[in-house]
Amino acid sequence: MFEFKIKNIQGLARTGTLETPHGEIQTPVFMPVGTKANVKTVTGSQLEDLGAQIMLANTYHLFLRPGEKLIKKMGGLHKWSNWNKPILTDSGGFQVFSLKKFNKITDEGVEFRSYLDGTKHFLTPEKAIKIQEDLGADIIMAFDECAPGKSSKRYAKDAMKRTHEWAVRCKKAHTKKDQALFPIIQGVTYDDLRIESAKFISDLDLPGVAIGGLSVGESKEQMYHTLEIVEPHLPKEKPRYLMGVGTPEDLLEAVSRGIDMFDCVLPTRLGRHGAFWNHTGRHTITNKKFAQDSQPLDKKCTCYTCKNHSASYLRHLIIEKELLGMHLMTIHNLSFILQLMKDIRESIDKGTFNRFKTQFFKNYKC
Amino acid sequence: MFEFKIKNIQGLARTGTLETPHGEIQTPVFMPVGTKANVKTVTGSQLEDLGAQIMLANTYHLFLRPGEKLIKKMGGLHKWSNWNKPILTDSGGFQVFSLKKFNKITDEGVEFRSYLDGTKHFLTPEKAIKIQEDLGADIIMAFDECAPGKSSKRYAKDAMKRTHEWAVRCKKAHTKKDQALFPIIQGVTYDDLRIESAKFISDLDLPGVAIGGLSVGESKEQMYHTLEIVEPHLPKEKPRYLMGVGTPEDLLEAVSRGIDMFDCVLPTRLGRHGAFWNHTGRHTITNKKFAQDSQPLDKKCTCYTCKNHSASYLRHLIIEKELLGMHLMTIHNLSFILQLMKDIRESIDKGTFNRFKTQFFKNYKC
Repeated sequence: MFEFKIKNIQGLARTGTLETPHGEIQTPVFMPVGTKANVKTVTGSQLEDLGAQIMLANTYHLFLRPGEKLIKKMGGLHKWSNWNKPILTDSGGFQVFSLKKFNKITDEGVEFRSYLDGTKHFLTPEKAIKIQEDLGADIIMAFDECAPGKSSKRYAKDAMKRTHEWAVRCKKAHTKKDQALFPIIQGVTYDDLRIESAKFISDLDLPGVAIGGLSVGESKEQMYHTLEIVEPHLPKEKPRYLMGVGTPEDLLEAVSRGIDMFDCVLPTRLGRHGAFWNHTGRHTITNKKFAQDSQPLDKKCTCYTCKNHSASYLRHLIIEKELLGMHLMTIHNLSFILQLMKDIRESIDKGTFNRFKTQFFKNYKC
Repeated sequence: MFEFKIKNIQGLARTGTLETPHGEIQTPVFMPVGTKANVKTVTGSQLEDLGAQIMLANTYHLFLRPGEKLIKKMGGLHKWSNWNKPILTDSGGFQVFSLKKFNKITDEGVEFRSYLDGTKHFLTPEKAIKIQEDLGADIIMAFDECAPGKSSKRYAKDAMKRTHEWAVRCKKAHTKKDQALFPIIQGVTYDDLRIESAKFISDLDLPGVAIGGLSVGESKEQMYHTLEIVEPHLPKEKPRYLMGVGTPEDLLEAVSRGIDMFDCVLPTRLGRHGAFWNHTGRHTITNKKFAQDSQPLDKKCTCYTCKNHSASYLRHLIIEKELLGMHLMTIHNLSFILQLMKDIRESIDKGTFNRFKTQFFKNYKC
């Protein structure tokens, strides 16, 4: 279970397959975010048609409502949401810490107030694991402290130390054999902390490693640099998951720095707000220039939206705040990112990844 | 063009086929409402899969934004929205009059302010026809004055007279041969006015007749009674369209009183707000009793939602205001109504409509 086989390598980029109880995942992989056990606007069958291999769900949101006990009673996340491919749940750490004002951190855990009704809750590494066991995802995450990108070194170090201790406690608490636990590297953008964290987390010898605390306020250069200094300390034979990253340019840059797994809310969130990517860059559909544009969002795209609708019609739907507009834009953005990942995998397998990346950036303006 | 063939008759109920430039419609038919040239949350291909034969769009909304000129330039409603089955546009009359505070009515037409930006506009019968010609629907509606269900007789009569004069002007203004113009019977719930209006409108000898001004504040008994006193004065050989009506019980009662066409926002609107129909009646998904209900909304239903999801999961999505919840509930409600219409057609063809209706109401509680 959870065997990771590397297929092809080009530089640091690699393709592989990760085995899970709900099927094999081809890496590098982008995981659409389904915060509340659904990817906003799209059905499970649409998500499958788009080529999604795995869905993310959020422990924090599902713990608060409807509660992991209800989901467990209904047969777990897969059965309840009728998504029968792999699922990954985050630990809730990121959400608890991004709502700073409402929490109190100790070495034991975090006390926080619900964003829904202000009720008090206490999350510990052990509890985060128990909740994720009840939810029943294939891959679960260690409870960590994600310090913002501009944190002081002192705070960055404290958060990292706590993250390490908590990872050890998570490993001890995790008993289910049909779930893979991934611990998380922290350390903000301090090279020595990142290296220390990469070594510590890798030494835990769990089925995968994650890199957290990036894309949280630091510059792109800092993010890419951090990936470069961390990579030599990661086990080659395990999947590496860069959390919360997902612009086309970041996906390409991170794959070329040895990353295998990604998640990000951007394709869905941007879609709902009328922004989209195509092979020339990122665009805003409400721009006047699209008013009479009878072309699809991307002439090369084969998604439902591009096969059936013009920019002019989509612009109208988004301006009118029509839910179908959000739905169609989400389909295109997910398709664009999932197709990009497929192209990346194919180019690595063919040994043409570097050429593919250069070619991509010739057309695509960040 | 626009030939209406009656296939089978049982009492006043009948099945038929209405020919249009974009295909044949089997009647009795329910027409999903696509106010702004889309049926909220669902794609065109989902709508086709649900068995929708024709879509409604609203002149008032499309005239104000993006404007009929833009839609004409983009090839008309069908091409622009990529809905290649029949379309019906209303005339804008209903919307202009339902925003009473913002309009000024004369015999010439109606001055009103845009709900979007307060700008002043003037709609006349001639202009309503011109706009609808630019939009390019298969069936277009005469510009009428829809008086509310509790109007005084004096106002009801004035509005009816104006509606008749405007219908004559619409007929004169309408020149396109590939669009059928339907005039509208008014008269609130005054029997003599309704009969006078039915005669006048029928005498215009257009391809169909519509009954407006029902389901706007009067009781169900008054609505059914009005249909009964109007019916003998309608041409047997033309399609009759009851505007804005669409609960399961009203569809059955109106078909049994000789109606062939319907439209209503209820399936989509109720769906977005978490209400649904099944064979036992109307229900609210947020009801606590559905929290751990692993059954679909309707065990007999074959829609995507019922085949894939439990009431428990749908309840969660609606409580969380997830757009996918609105999407899935809309699919079920449209499926329920469109399937009901199909069952009604089949029972009329088999001569078992009365039995079907009795059986339906045995299970279904209004």
